[in-house]
Amino acid sequence: MARSIVTLTTDFGSSDHYVGVMKGVILNINPEAEIVDICHDIHAYDVLEGAFAIAQAYRYFPPRTIHLVVVDPGVGTARRPILVAADKYYFVAPDNGVLSLVFDREENALVRHITSNHYFLEPVSQTFHGRDVFAPIAGWLSRQVETDKFGEPITDFVRFHVPPPKRVTDRLLKGMILRVDRFGTLVTNITPEDLPQLFAENPPDFKIIVGKMEISRLKTTYAQGAPGEVFAILGSSGYLEIAANRASATTTLGVSKGAEVGVIFT
Amino acid sequence: MARSIVTLTTDFGSSDHYVGVMKGVILNINPEAEIVDICHDIHAYDVLEGAFAIAQAYRYFPPRTIHLVVVDPGVGTARRPILVAADKYYFVAPDNGVLSLVFDREENALVRHITSNHYFLEPVSQTFHGRDVFAPIAGWLSRQVETDKFGEPITDFVRFHVPPPKRVTDRLLKGMILRVDRFGTLVTNITPEDLPQLFAENPPDFKIIVGKMEISRLKTTYAQGAPGEVFAILGSSGYLEIAANRASATTTLGVSKGAEVGVIFT
Amino acid sequence: MARSIVTLTTDFGSSDHYVGVMKGVILNINPEAEIVDICHDIHAYDVLEGAFAIAQAYRYFPPRTIHLVVVDPGVGTARRPILVAADKYYFVAPDNGVLSLVFDREENALVRHITSNHYFLEPVSQTFHGRDVFAPIAGWLSRQVETDKFGEPITDFVRFHVPPPKRVTDRLLKGMILRVDRFGTLVTNITPEDLPQLFAENPPDFKIIVGKMEISRLKTTYAQGAPGEVFAILGSSGYLEIAANRASATTTLGVSKGAEVGVIFT
Repeated sequence: MARSIVTLTTDFGSSDHYVGVMKGVILNINPEAEIVDICHDIHAYDVLEGAFAIAQAYRYFPPRTIHLVVVDPGVGTARRPILVAADKYYFVAPDNGVLSLVFDREENALVRHITSNHYFLEPVSQTFHGRDVFAPIAGWLSRQVETDKFGEPITDFVRFHVPPPKRVTDRLLKGMILRVDRFGTLVTNITPEDLPQLFAENPPDFKIIVGKMEISRLKTTYAQGAPGEVFAILGSSGYLEIAANRASATTTLGVSKGAEVGVIFT
Repeated sequence: MARSIVTLTTDFGSSDHYVGVMKGVILNINPEAEIVDICHDIHAYDVLEGAFAIAQAYRYFPPRTIHLVVVDPGVGTARRPILVAADKYYFVAPDNGVLSLVFDREENALVRHITSNHYFLEPVSQTFHGRDVFAPIAGWLSRQVETDKFGEPITDFVRFHVPPPKRVTDRLLKGMILRVDRFGTLVTNITPEDLPQLFAENPPDFKIIVGKMEISRLKTTYAQGAPGEVFAILGSSGYLEIAANRASATTTLGVSKGAEVGVIFT
Repeated sequence: MARSIVTLTTDFGSSDHYVGVMKGVILNINPEAEIVDICHDIHAYDVLEGAFAIAQAYRYFPPRTIHLVVVDPGVGTARRPILVAADKYYFVAPDNGVLSLVFDREENALVRHITSNHYFLEPVSQTFHGRDVFAPIAGWLSRQVETDKFGEPITDFVRFHVPPPKRVTDRLLKGMILRVDRFGTLVTNITPEDLPQLFAENPPDFKIIVGKMEISRLKTTYAQGAPGEVFAILGSSGYLEIAANRASATTTLGVSKGAEVGVIFT
């Protein structure tokens, strides 16, 4: 039998024992589980950022991988724990929208409200459900407990939509910076579907306005152009990015998450 | 046979090769070992912080897990390497008190001074015992070498006690901030045993004084109250915490590790 | 059959999904691969720093370990992906010099230009070869695909040399700070071979000049001397280091990477 893979995506950072405790709980239930860190440095409480990380990563794992996602500002409140069975993957998370971008890709996902508290780590605290609720569920699921043992299906789970860019005029589209990555690259909410002409073989002249800068070049690799030059590029996540050659666009432009991005065809 | 699990808790951070080297040494001795990171971002040289992390995490792992703890400001000096066999777990660490809080919970732990230098990685440096002493011992231990092969029992190992809160008057208890977690939550040294009335069903009126703030609310979840509101809560580690709803208490209060905390019944 | 170990060394940091995605790609090809993180916090684009990290760590792993190194500022350009078979280890990396210090130790390494694009993850992006090229190659290699299946040998691979210290006069050697580690220790490019007399049993009087400080003490452990005292020491990586007892030399001296270091015999 193939190993059970359990991935972890959290906002717990790396300076505390929280992630280690979750791993211990999973391994104590299933010592054969293979635990894989996706990312623990989601900004504290940032459910949207967590939603992006898991949506970008989950499809690259083997079928039957269990993805545990704990960005959980509402821990201890009435927000539900959920178990999601998608075509090839399982997800365990709080019902706060952190799986919204997974739902966008997984039309047939079946969402269950986890109520089977005999699987929980007792006594269940009101402050660390990663340890007491989510890790145990992932551990038991990795031991092939069937999903219907954990709770009933629900359809009223929380799901938000990434704010789409707005078409202001025929020639102007306004989007925003969704996140800034490790390299200082600014990831927008604009996709090729929003702006097919920009990514056409012979695109019309355009300006992308971010902060005080006007960008008129679209490149295909990060290393094109002069060192430090700022340009636009279609990034590996499928979004238009503003990047700088071997430099940080967020530092160069003084622009970060939430900033407006305008695309004008001239 | 179940896999041997070896956990790592260090102050080596994540920007150097040090942790990777330790993993290599363990796997070279036992390629079947399952290495699990607990935490590598203990503040440099902070033995107390390391003591907290391992004491919080170790019990959640499967029996026979080997916990390797390297916060070792005295590397190369006469401080001894030790191997601890507790009821269900093994610990390998420098003899500098980093296991003090484990000893508090493990009355029957047998502590050995590791002297069997034929297990070490030769030549043993005076600057990186994580690589040359501790990782090899963990590797061989994970291959079921018996603990008495590593050295003789000792009883004069280093052990410190977390400074307890002080009862100043019938109505005033003074404690301190032991650590600040990733969310900016201030973890005190005050437990329910120190202040049973605070955690009773109908607690008397009280004020908790931290920095310039007076807190008179005890909550049960981090998400209660208005966004940014500062309150007290019993945390998942078993200590009274000062937290802020979806915000950082250390930033809001301008208070960090070592600060005094007063609890007054009014 | 022994487990296949695949190590990861990147400049991808820990705040994004990039590392998680690479792990998923490897496990999807070989669910039995054992993935081990060496270091993901190489400074962005810093090929020299990546070269140091992998050169320090690789030899400690079991024979046949596959070392995947992705510090790749030229992603998407004409720089080649390479597969290196050394005596005991495999390496997969961009051909940008990041394996230079490995080549220094591995005289017999055979370097191949990876051209077998049927192993790649299609469609291959121009922005994330860690996901689309390097991780798949490591995954297939871990399934025992033979190295000659991936491409032809080359000899014109990129290889740089660490700038050696300069002997200015009989009594003066000038070196530089190559990197600063987590503890604030300054690692120079000076080895015992450059200055055998400094590491002799009875060294002559000397001064090491770094920033505005003159250091005349060579110690053998980090914990010697008064707290905060700055001194020289032969570090675990084999280079002369400038360190401070339980403190940060980079902070104390106001000196960091690239700074000049002079050694004068007086």
